[in-house]
Amino acid sequence: MNSFGRLFRLSIFGESHGPQVGVLIDGCPAGLELSADDFEPDLVRRRAGAKGTTPRREADLPMLQSGIHNGRTTGAPLLIAFDNTDVRSAAYAPLAVTPRPGHADLVARQKFGGFQDPRGGGHFSGRLTVALVAAGVVAKKLLQPAKIEARLLEAGGTGEVDGAVAAAMADQDSIGGIVEGRASSLGSGLGEPFFDSAESLLSHLLFAIPAIKGVEFGDGFASARKRGSEMNDEILDASGTTRTNHAGGVNGGITNGNELVVRVAVKPTSSIAKAQRTVNLETGQATELSVGGRHDACIALRVPVVVEAAMAIVLADLSLLEGRIPRVLR
Amino acid sequence: MNSFGRLFRLSIFGESHGPQVGVLIDGCPAGLELSADDFEPDLVRRRAGAKGTTPRREADLPMLQSGIHNGRTTGAPLLIAFDNTDVRSAAYAPLAVTPRPGHADLVARQKFGGFQDPRGGGHFSGRLTVALVAAGVVAKKLLQPAKIEARLLEAGGTGEVDGAVAAAMADQDSIGGIVEGRASSLGSGLGEPFFDSAESLLSHLLFAIPAIKGVEFGDGFASARKRGSEMNDEILDASGTTRTNHAGGVNGGITNGNELVVRVAVKPTSSIAKAQRTVNLETGQATELSVGGRHDACIALRVPVVVEAAMAIVLADLSLLEGRIPRVLR
Amino acid sequence: MNSFGRLFRLSIFGESHGPQVGVLIDGCPAGLELSADDFEPDLVRRRAGAKGTTPRREADLPMLQSGIHNGRTTGAPLLIAFDNTDVRSAAYAPLAVTPRPGHADLVARQKFGGFQDPRGGGHFSGRLTVALVAAGVVAKKLLQPAKIEARLLEAGGTGEVDGAVAAAMADQDSIGGIVEGRASSLGSGLGEPFFDSAESLLSHLLFAIPAIKGVEFGDGFASARKRGSEMNDEILDASGTTRTNHAGGVNGGITNGNELVVRVAVKPTSSIAKAQRTVNLETGQATELSVGGRHDACIALRVPVVVEAAMAIVLADLSLLEGRIPRVLR
Amino acid sequence: MNSFGRLFRLSIFGESHGPQVGVLIDGCPAGLELSADDFEPDLVRRRAGAKGTTPRREADLPMLQSGIHNGRTTGAPLLIAFDNTDVRSAAYAPLAVTPRPGHADLVARQKFGGFQDPRGGGHFSGRLTVALVAAGVVAKKLLQPAKIEARLLEAGGTGEVDGAVAAAMADQDSIGGIVEGRASSLGSGLGEPFFDSAESLLSHLLFAIPAIKGVEFGDGFASARKRGSEMNDEILDASGTTRTNHAGGVNGGITNGNELVVRVAVKPTSSIAKAQRTVNLETGQATELSVGGRHDACIALRVPVVVEAAMAIVLADLSLLEGRIPRVLR
Repeated sequence: MNSFGRLFRLSIFGESHGPQVGVLIDGCPAGLELSADDFEPDLVRRRAGAKGTTPRREADLPMLQSGIHNGRTTGAPLLIAFDNTDVRSAAYAPLAVTPRPGHADLVARQKFGGFQDPRGGGHFSGRLTVALVAAGVVAKKLLQPAKIEARLLEAGGTGEVDGAVAAAMADQDSIGGIVEGRASSLGSGLGEPFFDSAESLLSHLLFAIPAIKGVEFGDGFASARKRGSEMNDEILDASGTTRTNHAGGVNGGITNGNELVVRVAVKPTSSIAKAQRTVNLETGQATELSVGGRHDACIALRVPVVVEAAMAIVLADLSLLEGRIPRVLR
Repeated sequence: MNSFGRLFRLSIFGESHGPQVGVLIDGCPAGLELSADDFEPDLVRRRAGAKGTTPRREADLPMLQSGIHNGRTTGAPLLIAFDNTDVRSAAYAPLAVTPRPGHADLVARQKFGGFQDPRGGGHFSGRLTVALVAAGVVAKKLLQPAKIEARLLEAGGTGEVDGAVAAAMADQDSIGGIVEGRASSLGSGLGEPFFDSAESLLSHLLFAIPAIKGVEFGDGFASARKRGSEMNDEILDASGTTRTNHAGGVNGGITNGNELVVRVAVKPTSSIAKAQRTVNLETGQATELSVGGRHDACIALRVPVVVEAAMAIVLADLSLLEGRIPRVLR
Repeated sequence: MNSFGRLFRLSIFGESHGPQVGVLIDGCPAGLELSADDFEPDLVRRRAGAKGTTPRREADLPMLQSGIHNGRTTGAPLLIAFDNTDVRSAAYAPLAVTPRPGHADLVARQKFGGFQDPRGGGHFSGRLTVALVAAGVVAKKLLQPAKIEARLLEAGGTGEVDGAVAAAMADQDSIGGIVEGRASSLGSGLGEPFFDSAESLLSHLLFAIPAIKGVEFGDGFASARKRGSEMNDEILDASGTTRTNHAGGVNGGITNGNELVVRVAVKPTSSIAKAQRTVNLETGQATELSVGGRHDACIALRVPVVVEAAMAIVLADLSLLEGRIPRVLR
Repeated sequence: MNSFGRLFRLSIFGESHGPQVGVLIDGCPAGLELSADDFEPDLVRRRAGAKGTTPRREADLPMLQSGIHNGRTTGAPLLIAFDNTDVRSAAYAPLAVTPRPGHADLVARQKFGGFQDPRGGGHFSGRLTVALVAAGVVAKKLLQPAKIEARLLEAGGTGEVDGAVAAAMADQDSIGGIVEGRASSLGSGLGEPFFDSAESLLSHLLFAIPAIKGVEFGDGFASARKRGSEMNDEILDASGTTRTNHAGGVNGGITNGNELVVRVAVKPTSSIAKAQRTVNLETGQATELSVGGRHDACIALRVPVVVEAAMAIVLADLSLLEGRIPRVLR
């Protein structure tokens, strides 16, 4: 299922080493000003280059192939495509035969009968997050003036991220991290009980981001160790102002007007140069694999902008459902 | 959105103190043997009565109103309804005016313009989990011989649950807990990239359960503090047997044949007798609220069977998509 | 797929001779006044009793099992159930073995592996239209002051319906008819290109009504024999007033503010007393069948209120999408 | 809503004079051999050029941008894009101000607040049927060996199509027509009661094709003038062979194994050179419009391949649901 959303609907497509990756957005209101330049800041944040991220470099020029006229959205579907240019498939060739531990290589092969595109992780590649980020840019514009921001809280178990990354790289290893997203000025009332609680939809999309293994809201797992009197946010006035925000901005699956707070656990990149045991699928023999190619030592460094995108996409959809964003922006 | 699922679709309905709660299941294969007795064991597990759970007692007799003929499902929609009998709305009357901290009372009122049913939490009540449990019973039967089991790992921050519950009750307070669910003998290949990863769908449904504030798979949040060489599950043979199961049975959003492992954080019950600050919505004045009525001191005690239900519902849906469960059971 | 709609979503359930039939409506705005009395006029129109309709009589008392509080909808799902009372299954027993020509008996048996409920047509019975009519009542209230009306244009190929019905009954035979629906004061702009054109959604729901074999809008099939200069509706002013209404109120799949006009072809009832060739599925032998039990000689007599319901359901959903009906009615 | 389908899901995009039009297909089984050449025969049939069709000529080269590896589908989304090349927007400029009678110009402007792309009909153009035809090619391959064929039965009210077209062109006018589609070797059991009857889904997609004003199955509107004894298809054996096929291959919304027969009414092209009354939206003054540019005198000539595509898309989706087409083709 490569589509998500009820009124603001995205469908993503593409493979790491195929011709294009991108996103088709259906249901975007008409009249939103939009140009390729709008995407640049978030694409830069996602792009590789910093220490600890892959040296693969994509120009990432968004091509707006439909749904735009005179610089504004038309109400028709918006296709945003990116050409894949910096593709070096040769390094991946062995992976088709020796699946990477911790990666989707083997399950993808089993599920799709060997027809999946194995080059660079194919459709399972982190490359596809460029499509999420692009959709997130559109969603953020729709949500203005609400503010959505995510940042890396820690990596490798410490707030001293640079040191942890360097140490892992020295060991041909990788590290995970924790990213926190916050949304403010949203207003209350977003979330559709029973099944489309704000937390349900956000976690649904957040767990679609490769490498995410945990999602929590407000006090999250810590709340399991608290008492009700510590966890409950006392109500100070009729508008719903609370003394604290342990709930992370959501009660009963509906936003309550407080800052929405979510944290995600990003596991360490599975592709590492350090040798690991795997199997050669052609011979059936056990073997060791040291993953070459270009990989991130700490993919969590690039996740914040993707978390922001996921949050914005869900919140834009819920805002449309609630009638907070009109179908035509005048 | 009170519906969930693509092929095995459930729609829930009802309020805590209305005439009925229940679930309508569409897409259940024809030919499944099903009787009211099948529901009893799981309904008993969910039901109140143990120390730390509410003294409200419902007979919880499932009424199979459609979709059954000669003791088997027909392929037509299956309506399973439960009458609400042990209803004492009087105790809740003040709550319509003084919203409970930590509960959905205030946001529900804001979102639905005051028309929501406030009695006993209305449509936001934990009472609706009886509908999830009922759907879970059907899903588990479809998944046989796969085994789905959840249990309470800890409550109030300790494995000594009875003591923690007693201490909280003595203080007119409540405690949270952590529930772990495991599914085995599932087979690999369940999960629909990009957006309907197994983790996405499971978290979607798990976060719809009242009081859940966190969801993690496999090593979850701990994985954020690990290195790739510690987190990756080395592959031992061509069928995908791994040395460890840090991933919790899911790679790239697709089950890999290992045991599927998920943990949820259950916050402490928000309804407590201990006095808390809130507001009187009619007068606008600050006030204190001590919640009377019948409440659980530790709702986490009743959550395991609901987690099992959520897991079974998602896994049955994915199994139908994958063609593992036929549309007619012969 | 027993659900329909995007924001105003209905799920129907039940069998002709099971305990109940009914509809679960999700997404109905909060604050709509609703009581069992609201359903009576349309249920009476659908009910049997006139010459040419079945003598089966159901009290058809709608039970509002959820989603109502203090006489208004709450925003939570609305379950409307009807008990089946006047059930005489004995007359249908032979039909499980000798499928009726023109009816779903045989295909249902093939598709559901023999597990379908065969009594009275089971889930394929016209009895289920009571659920559509109930949902239509709610939809019509939401659409006020728009007006939706359907009537029987002709039956048995003539406008002299009573005579045609009497003649068919005398011959132990049945007749079909044509029903026309009109909706006015809708406003323009309803319909969601490309795939959810107003015509697409209306025909989708209309063809779900048993016995419908054709649907046309405006000049419909006659337009295929016209020239563009005859068919086009000339535009008289900037608001879109047209000289004629050959399009039946829809251009490019979107309502244009003119009266919406649709006609459906209702085939003659397939259950007739006149002997027809069929097969005994147990013996495999050819046989003749004369259908006893209680049947309509002209089901088209009862279809207008069902057509109105289908129109109202689609138009309410599209009006919600367009923001014409708010989510809370104040 | 620019998406359609449950398991075989298409999303279309593009405008007549934008950069691209195309279709994104999600849910196509892995392992299907597919190349650009597969599309040529159906694209040629749809393409303009014959007498009575527009002289606009598009190369219509399908670009397979994702979802293909080594000449086979991978199970990931398949993006099929077409560049728009032969675009002459100048001829359409006046239409933005003087809406064409019978066309979507005015309603599109009203619905999308004037932000819609008006060039060449924008997203409402018949140009988008190239995307449907492309999806139809994929669907037909999946359905093999089932055979789907549509043809023009009549145009301008006569079977002598060439003469009727020439006469209309001489008068600067246009004509409609009737197209009949037939599908054989499908097998029985396709169609999902209650709401996704085979007829419901087919009509839903057929009415999305521009210019369609009527859809009927089997005897269709003629059945309204028949008696049950004439309309019912007598059953000759236990496999369901019938003496006749008045039902057009569908009983109770489910295919019965007979040839599926559907007819659609195609209205005459609304863009005609003959002068018609309309309004100048800038001045509000009544005016006359003679539509220049390149248009079809009989769009029905190009509709058969689009009807085939719509039929194939629906039938492939239903076949996947029924498990008749596996998720991996080996």
